Amino acid sequence: MIQLAPVAGIPEVTPGDALGELIGRALPGPLHRGDVLVVAQKVVSKAEGRLVRLDTVTPSEFAVSVARTLGGKDARLIEVILGETKRIVRMDHGVLIVETHQGFVCANGGVDLSNVDGGTTASLLPLDADGSAAHIAGAVETATGLHIPVIISDTFGRPWREGLVDVAIGVHGMVALRDHRHQSDPHGYTLRATVLAEADQLAAAAGLLFRKNSGVPACIIRGFDYQEGEGAAQHLLRNPEHDLFR
Amino acid sequence: MIQLAPVAGIPEVTPGDALGELIGRALPGPLHRGDVLVVAQKVVSKAEGRLVRLDTVTPSEFAVSVARTLGGKDARLIEVILGETKRIVRMDHGVLIVETHQGFVCANGGVDLSNVDGGTTASLLPLDADGSAAHIAGAVETATGLHIPVIISDTFGRPWREGLVDVAIGVHGMVALRDHRHQSDPHGYTLRATVLAEADQLAAAAGLLFRKNSGVPACIIRGFDYQEGEGAAQHLLRNPEHDLFR
Repeated sequence: MIQLAPVAGIPEVTPGDALGELIGRALPGPLHRGDVLVVAQKVVSKAEGRLVRLDTVTPSEFAVSVARTLGGKDARLIEVILGETKRIVRMDHGVLIVETHQGFVCANGGVDLSNVDGGTTASLLPLDADGSAAHIAGAVETATGLHIPVIISDTFGRPWREGLVDVAIGVHGMVALRDHRHQSDPHGYTLRATVLAEADQLAAAAGLLFRKNSGVPACIIRGFDYQEGEGAAQHLLRNPEHDLFR
Repeated sequence: MIQLAPVAGIPEVTPGDALGELIGRALPGPLHRGDVLVVAQKVVSKAEGRLVRLDTVTPSEFAVSVARTLGGKDARLIEVILGETKRIVRMDHGVLIVETHQGFVCANGGVDLSNVDGGTTASLLPLDADGSAAHIAGAVETATGLHIPVIISDTFGRPWREGLVDVAIGVHGMVALRDHRHQSDPHGYTLRATVLAEADQLAAAAGLLFRKNSGVPACIIRGFDYQEGEGAAQHLLRNPEHDLFR
């Protein structure tokens, strides 16, 4: 049995807030050893001040051109996205897919106007979400005495499939990718391609509680047998040299 | 609170087995209205006889060539994969990504040697996994009196990210994609890009219980507020004309 319990009742988060403490106070009950905490990216970005007011942005000539090419986007928003961008992966059909400086490949570099202040301020991904996860784990340990794994999640689109799913953009305190290769299945077959993105599956499960307007920015997952060890969302990023879709 | 309860104790499934009845008998307790059943693809394929013994396969010249290009794969397995293939999307680095006749884009067309009989028999995806889900929902209704949504899940890889996650390849009885566009967030911002692949997130959550060798081929998800309506995994497939990564 696996249980997902919402962490609710966290007040509106603003830059400089001690998010880990706020979460520690809002936990739905005592933590158990083996619990995993998943925190939605938006509150992490707000606490870390990863916000840009669009009226402070002067778009470059290139940003103006990209905005036009994409069918009339706000050039200031494009400027903010380009600031997060290491490389443009695709730019077509009104969609801008980029690789961020952190190595994530996603639409708009993770820059988003929703759930901030009504559309005048953009939120950016944390600069180092693995570090954010570690920081929150430390604050939760201070509040509860237990050091549990923490995942920072965000909703990303995918090629080939419609709709967004939550994935892990920050991981601390557990192995992000579980490697079953070279193990045998019950029929004696040696598994070849079985590396499971367990941190992403935990993020997706948590996403069931992080619905828009739910007021739930975090949850506790209880009963999942995660693999202890050093973890990092960076481990989830495919080496560009082995990626067939760049 | 969301709960994931494993459906365990199902005997080894063989072609012709009434899988829905087997699941109905193995449920971990009485169903509740609002429960969702997720079933792993492998047992569905076995029950439907979607199995091919490799020693019955004669590879074509093309399959032999592809097997060689991919670095010495079994040409008979490639022949089986090509039988599932509408179009080869990528063929490189020892990896074969195809679009199946059902429209899924995935490695090896969903053909898999694991968890069958030790490596001499390949399992194929169900011919119509939406239909499989509907069929199982009917059998579960007969056993319990409740008609609940059913998702068939399989583990797929992704571009850009390492590791497999479970996705929905069959959906019955719920809306697969929840559309939040044109709704407002709590700050009055009108959401633009927010379509959530809820069936995929349910599949990923269930995947936390479907670990290799767990003996858990199905689970009940309780407490998720899914959207009622006609559903189909086909709705999760991006229109190729709008897909930037074909």
